[in-house]
Amino acid sequence: MTKLGIVGYGNLGKASEKIACSRDDMTVVGIFTRRDPATMHSPFGTPFYSQDQLQQFVGKIDVLALCTGSANDLVDLALEQAKHFNTIDSFDTHARMREYVTALDAVALDNQHLSMVGVGWDPGVFSIMRTLFDGVLPNGHTVTFWGKGVSQGHSEAIRKLDGVVKAVQYTVPKEDALAMARAGQGSALTTRDKHLRQCFVVAEDGADLDKIACQIKSMPNYFADYDTEVNFVSSEEFDLNHTAMPHGGLVLRRGDVNGMAENLEFNLNLSSNPDFTASVLMAYARCLVRLYNKGVRGALTALDVPVSALIDVDRIDTIAKFL
Amino acid sequence: MTKLGIVGYGNLGKASEKIACSRDDMTVVGIFTRRDPATMHSPFGTPFYSQDQLQQFVGKIDVLALCTGSANDLVDLALEQAKHFNTIDSFDTHARMREYVTALDAVALDNQHLSMVGVGWDPGVFSIMRTLFDGVLPNGHTVTFWGKGVSQGHSEAIRKLDGVVKAVQYTVPKEDALAMARAGQGSALTTRDKHLRQCFVVAEDGADLDKIACQIKSMPNYFADYDTEVNFVSSEEFDLNHTAMPHGGLVLRRGDVNGMAENLEFNLNLSSNPDFTASVLMAYARCLVRLYNKGVRGALTALDVPVSALIDVDRIDTIAKFL
Repeated sequence: MTKLGIVGYGNLGKASEKIACSRDDMTVVGIFTRRDPATMHSPFGTPFYSQDQLQQFVGKIDVLALCTGSANDLVDLALEQAKHFNTIDSFDTHARMREYVTALDAVALDNQHLSMVGVGWDPGVFSIMRTLFDGVLPNGHTVTFWGKGVSQGHSEAIRKLDGVVKAVQYTVPKEDALAMARAGQGSALTTRDKHLRQCFVVAEDGADLDKIACQIKSMPNYFADYDTEVNFVSSEEFDLNHTAMPHGGLVLRRGDVNGMAENLEFNLNLSSNPDFTASVLMAYARCLVRLYNKGVRGALTALDVPVSALIDVDRIDTIAKFL
Repeated sequence: MTKLGIVGYGNLGKASEKIACSRDDMTVVGIFTRRDPATMHSPFGTPFYSQDQLQQFVGKIDVLALCTGSANDLVDLALEQAKHFNTIDSFDTHARMREYVTALDAVALDNQHLSMVGVGWDPGVFSIMRTLFDGVLPNGHTVTFWGKGVSQGHSEAIRKLDGVVKAVQYTVPKEDALAMARAGQGSALTTRDKHLRQCFVVAEDGADLDKIACQIKSMPNYFADYDTEVNFVSSEEFDLNHTAMPHGGLVLRRGDVNGMAENLEFNLNLSSNPDFTASVLMAYARCLVRLYNKGVRGALTALDVPVSALIDVDRIDTIAKFL
């Protein structure tokens, strides 16, 4: 039975709690929040505590899942809590990975804990694909596409415009860019070349739709340099079709072996981004506890863990079943 | 510099030699054969030796790649050579994996060697996908498809028919079966349901084409229970379009997290089956030598090795680049 603590109760924390509560090998000891615990409620009856109370749980939690929203807070939180707990997170600021893993490794080793970093789908599952693809097909080029999925930042940028009631922005991989990547012409593609920005907007009654569409398409940084599609829909249609959090993406590698073209392609298609991210996080959380119990210490990523460690049966049974 | 020995000089041995000779971190010490070495020739000038001469190379080979054709021979060969060498193979008889890995692990440990088993694309890369997919999405169902690719056994069965000059059989995943698997209805599909058998045949002048097609389609075990398509082509067209060895396949997992449907899909599309298999084999051969030098002993599979071990740079550099 894995005793889980959850820090943060946004989409990821809630989805992680729901998964853990549905499993007979996990129990949620508590949810730790910066908000007032007395105002918080869980559909599973999980108790809430202030983040300041974490110290009282030393020795009572096998792994602490850091599900806070802010990337900056998360690094500080992990470096502090790895002194007292095993930690796992889905930290996703690629540019800071070297610094973060190095610092967390030192803290975890000093305190004889095990931490896992960047465990989700990107980073996480996509990272495994990029590394494996490069390893088995060294002479080639990898391209990552994101979507079709909701970009929270772009959706919020639209919602700030006058006359907009509701809005969502989907990042969509372009078919012609996918075809180029599959044909070995992916190295010149930028993120911009690869993705279409598809917007669904509910406007106020009487709003100037042409003006809103023009404002969106010309918005610097967010939309101006992309192919942007703006669709106005009714509030009812929006609520019916555009409130979910789908996401996904592709990792494509085209390479050459002895003059022959070889293609590797991983494709993720998610009805719910936070639920799948939480599923990955919880799988590695159980794996973390097994590795900790075997004596592994320090900070690891999904790249450092063999896939057999994800399966909670004897290694030879895993080989017989999956190899 | 990895000192490689190759046992067997069929498609896989030749492709492995070509890769190793193209890399500046590998050298091929020798090719070991059951045929008369004096009759053998390598385009790279690699020396040939009798398999009986392997003993003379103890201490001179970092890893011995077992590229023999017969699955039975391969197990006996590995269990014998693991006494003297580190070995790697792409053994693919799924039903014997438990027995083989267990036996080879004992021999390798007894003799302080490291062996890797079943390293190719299936088993190998596909096995990693099946295990990872099951791990991160435990509530779901995985379906493996093979093709489009050449089945040597089925091609040979056609070539034995009277009136057939040349023939190739492609195993092709059926689109409707792929759609069912993606929609979460894959659990009922059999190998038969999932694949079309597509045949290209060059017939003798004056042969009865209807009779040949009928004989193919009614052939027990091979074709009778499948959807089989027979195409007669000219010898010239056959030589132009049907002498390569393409292959590939898909590993699909449809699962559920908190009531939301999530799809994971890996797709392999190979111009050359033996060249890609050799690329995987050589990548893990270099990885094997690094792990051996770190003290790892016994028999491992692709499931037991973290993907970061495939990349010959510092672990933190690998994390910074790929995570």
